[in-house]
Amino acid sequence: MSDAQKRRRAGGRAGHAERAGVAAIEQMPWRIPVNPDRPTEPLDAEGVAAIHKGAMRILSEIGIRFLNPEALEIFRQAGCIVEDENVRMDEAFVMEMVRKAPSEFTVTPRNPDRALPMGGKHILFGNVSSPPNYWDLERGKVPGFMEGFRDFIKLTQYFNCIHFAGGYPVEPVDVHPSVRHLDCLYEKLTLTDKVVHAYSLGKERVEDAMEMVRIAGGLTHEEFRAKPRMFTNINSVSPLKHDFPMIDGTLRMARAGQAVVVTPFTLAGAMAPVTMAGAVALSIAEALSAIALQQYVAPGSPSMIGTFTSNVDMKSGAPAFGTPEYIRATQMTGQLARFYGLPLRSSGVCAANVPDGQAMWETSNSLWAAMTSGTNLVYHAAGWLEGGLIASPEKFVMDCEVLQMLQRYMEPQVWATTPDDIALDAIREVGPGGHYFGCQHTQDRYTTAFYSPFASDWRNFEAWKIDGAMWTAERAHKIAKAILADYEEPPMDAGIREELRAFVARRKQEGGAPTDF
Amino acid sequence: MSDAQKRRRAGGRAGHAERAGVAAIEQMPWRIPVNPDRPTEPLDAEGVAAIHKGAMRILSEIGIRFLNPEALEIFRQAGCIVEDENVRMDEAFVMEMVRKAPSEFTVTPRNPDRALPMGGKHILFGNVSSPPNYWDLERGKVPGFMEGFRDFIKLTQYFNCIHFAGGYPVEPVDVHPSVRHLDCLYEKLTLTDKVVHAYSLGKERVEDAMEMVRIAGGLTHEEFRAKPRMFTNINSVSPLKHDFPMIDGTLRMARAGQAVVVTPFTLAGAMAPVTMAGAVALSIAEALSAIALQQYVAPGSPSMIGTFTSNVDMKSGAPAFGTPEYIRATQMTGQLARFYGLPLRSSGVCAANVPDGQAMWETSNSLWAAMTSGTNLVYHAAGWLEGGLIASPEKFVMDCEVLQMLQRYMEPQVWATTPDDIALDAIREVGPGGHYFGCQHTQDRYTTAFYSPFASDWRNFEAWKIDGAMWTAERAHKIAKAILADYEEPPMDAGIREELRAFVARRKQEGGAPTDF
Repeated sequence: MSDAQKRRRAGGRAGHAERAGVAAIEQMPWRIPVNPDRPTEPLDAEGVAAIHKGAMRILSEIGIRFLNPEALEIFRQAGCIVEDENVRMDEAFVMEMVRKAPSEFTVTPRNPDRALPMGGKHILFGNVSSPPNYWDLERGKVPGFMEGFRDFIKLTQYFNCIHFAGGYPVEPVDVHPSVRHLDCLYEKLTLTDKVVHAYSLGKERVEDAMEMVRIAGGLTHEEFRAKPRMFTNINSVSPLKHDFPMIDGTLRMARAGQAVVVTPFTLAGAMAPVTMAGAVALSIAEALSAIALQQYVAPGSPSMIGTFTSNVDMKSGAPAFGTPEYIRATQMTGQLARFYGLPLRSSGVCAANVPDGQAMWETSNSLWAAMTSGTNLVYHAAGWLEGGLIASPEKFVMDCEVLQMLQRYMEPQVWATTPDDIALDAIREVGPGGHYFGCQHTQDRYTTAFYSPFASDWRNFEAWKIDGAMWTAERAHKIAKAILADYEEPPMDAGIREELRAFVARRKQEGGAPTDF
Repeated sequence: MSDAQKRRRAGGRAGHAERAGVAAIEQMPWRIPVNPDRPTEPLDAEGVAAIHKGAMRILSEIGIRFLNPEALEIFRQAGCIVEDENVRMDEAFVMEMVRKAPSEFTVTPRNPDRALPMGGKHILFGNVSSPPNYWDLERGKVPGFMEGFRDFIKLTQYFNCIHFAGGYPVEPVDVHPSVRHLDCLYEKLTLTDKVVHAYSLGKERVEDAMEMVRIAGGLTHEEFRAKPRMFTNINSVSPLKHDFPMIDGTLRMARAGQAVVVTPFTLAGAMAPVTMAGAVALSIAEALSAIALQQYVAPGSPSMIGTFTSNVDMKSGAPAFGTPEYIRATQMTGQLARFYGLPLRSSGVCAANVPDGQAMWETSNSLWAAMTSGTNLVYHAAGWLEGGLIASPEKFVMDCEVLQMLQRYMEPQVWATTPDDIALDAIREVGPGGHYFGCQHTQDRYTTAFYSPFASDWRNFEAWKIDGAMWTAERAHKIAKAILADYEEPPMDAGIREELRAFVARRKQEGGAPTDF
């Protein structure tokens, strides 16, 4: 096969990962996108140094509260200044710890074909995580429920442009919180074979999640710990605080060799300074303090800087997403992440309440922020509404159209300039006033030449009107239903499934996790 | 005033250009955006050279048809190879001509405060041009009409984020084509004071437009010709053809020292090769051939490369916009434009039929293509639907929200890193678990710290629902009405207005322009 053929095949519609649900829509094959573009860098070297120095002064002069006795003891041991719950650490210590973290690592789920390289030029996309509510065109806004949770996990598995399953795509409040993590992890691990995440919300939840991922992968304890199999995402309680369970989860995951993403929620003007540089400096300080702890107890374990820096509406205090300030803060954080040699997580987010025009311009802005910042992991990339309070299947489908386009945008064949691509012979053949539809150069390439949409309607107004005049959200509603009807579970060994089921049953009998913290 | 104060003021909401319609919405002041970011460059030097060489071989080996006897005679005189209507020109000639064109120039309309620097790092945005149809939530899709035309011109004048008036924002088919240009130019020149465009659709239309711009500016003929006062945009008839009136208009405008944008309509797979590099090479060849002609007859007159390279849907042949291929083609053309030292025009476009989610993700993609390609002039940036067949006031308003965000995104204050921005003292003052709303650092900055939207709804779902649960397009509909009710004409000297009116009356009496070409 020639290079050109390989390129063409790489851009084709066929691929093994498509086996589930070819009938509902024609989608792009599973692939690991590589972002070829130079990141957009608003800061010069002095700007990067100013934020770095700001973060270091926050850590050494002001300090961060760790509401976790074990962490305080570790910091004390490491020579940091611990006063009550406040920890101050100097630049030399922080940088020594940060340098221990790998700049790239791979997370391998139960299906090794779904292994994800995190860091470098890779950019991976995950589903919406953690909304308490569900919204669709039929139901309107309702509290999250298990059937909705399952639907989102099925969509997560179905779409090849979604690489990992983040937190719960919607919180199933119809399941008791003490056992919710058991049911949710069981559904995630059987309905998908992609990389999953564990909430750091108490010892039992973290340990149960690790154990279930181990069982689902058919792994011994040694095999599980030998390399990253999953990840957790922790948030600081901005400003300047890390709570008990998040840090507990970090320590457990890190000691087991699993990946930790630290994402401060630094909303400028509320939990962070009103200036973006200040909000980013605070976010970096909070993230590095947890990463330093992680690297001290588990040197070389996988760490990632997360950014959730945005701004509030100063009139109402409401959080805003995909704003100009959000985009620049994400790019600035990307520059700092590269300065520290750490992978970066950002998000696909919006403040809109329904999947309308605003939802898509805000989400587009946040996705372009991810693309231009050198982001490696894009959280909430499909299905997010109302600043994270709603998960919507229509929005999920609409976002996947955009994600597919971004992934196609990163394929080098689009801008290839071989003599075949310049097409001088075709231009000569067609001549002035002719048409390229029929020429051999087009015939050889037309099936794979261009991105092919599944939710966009490119017909003219009249054809669109005759077919029901459906606005995007209505089309997406129908597509989501068709996909769910068409969904097929990824294969799982019957013995493993039984072992998972038995584990869940036993842990439920034991009472699951305490719910009183 | 300190630099920081100046920066803050620059980000403020006040400004003289806001005088019209402060009541309808709170908008950003008039400003000339400078794009500070390094363009995204998919091509390496070899790739640029490959497309350049391809374009040069198209021009020297295949040639371009000029359906304009005067142009053929000029090319013959210049030593090009002219056979029937086909003109072949070699690289040395093309490059010699292209080098005569300025890389930056300024277009000054009747209000000199609205002068527009074109080229360099400037990026300017214009309204939708040329749709034959009008759509809004009340009327649905109807043929263009003069009252709709006037509404769009008012929106063009009202929004400070719109810098110039392109072609007719909707074609008023209720006015006879022989005199339509007279009425349209009269409305444009009285309802706005921004830079306007003239269609190159026949001698009379071009000459009338130039004369009316001269009158509106209160200029002598010498003053008018002394510097660029307006521009035209011509399209080649891809592949490989320039028609009579477009080239005629180019020659007239260039000889009068006015600006010419050459925008081939190279839809890959239809009027251009199915490969993006081939479509770009064809587009560059067609553009440079007209620019070479322009520079031969009027050395140093302002030229601009336009790109409209996109792809078709290979299933239906329908044009698509804001696709991955569109974005990369725009960026590739930007690299070539910089190679030739010419400013670049691209567009804000979509294929969607209504202002829904698809409309905004496609338009966002095309606007990010403009931002990342080093585009200097963004045509169709507000109001475009259905691949250019529909102009919509709702879409206009929605696009302006996005344009304001992009313009805010380019303001250096967003990523400033002075000690005040790093805000260490505020972080110390607020401490852990505190809140930044009340601190002095926030109080000093909260009115100008963040972008403030007029069409986005950042309230939570419940507040949004109580207030009518309006989707974006419905809000935009109301906003457009409020703006139109609030619109005020820019001042114009009574004598000049009378002179314009008399000119239109006389030219109508003379029959206007022939309509038989």
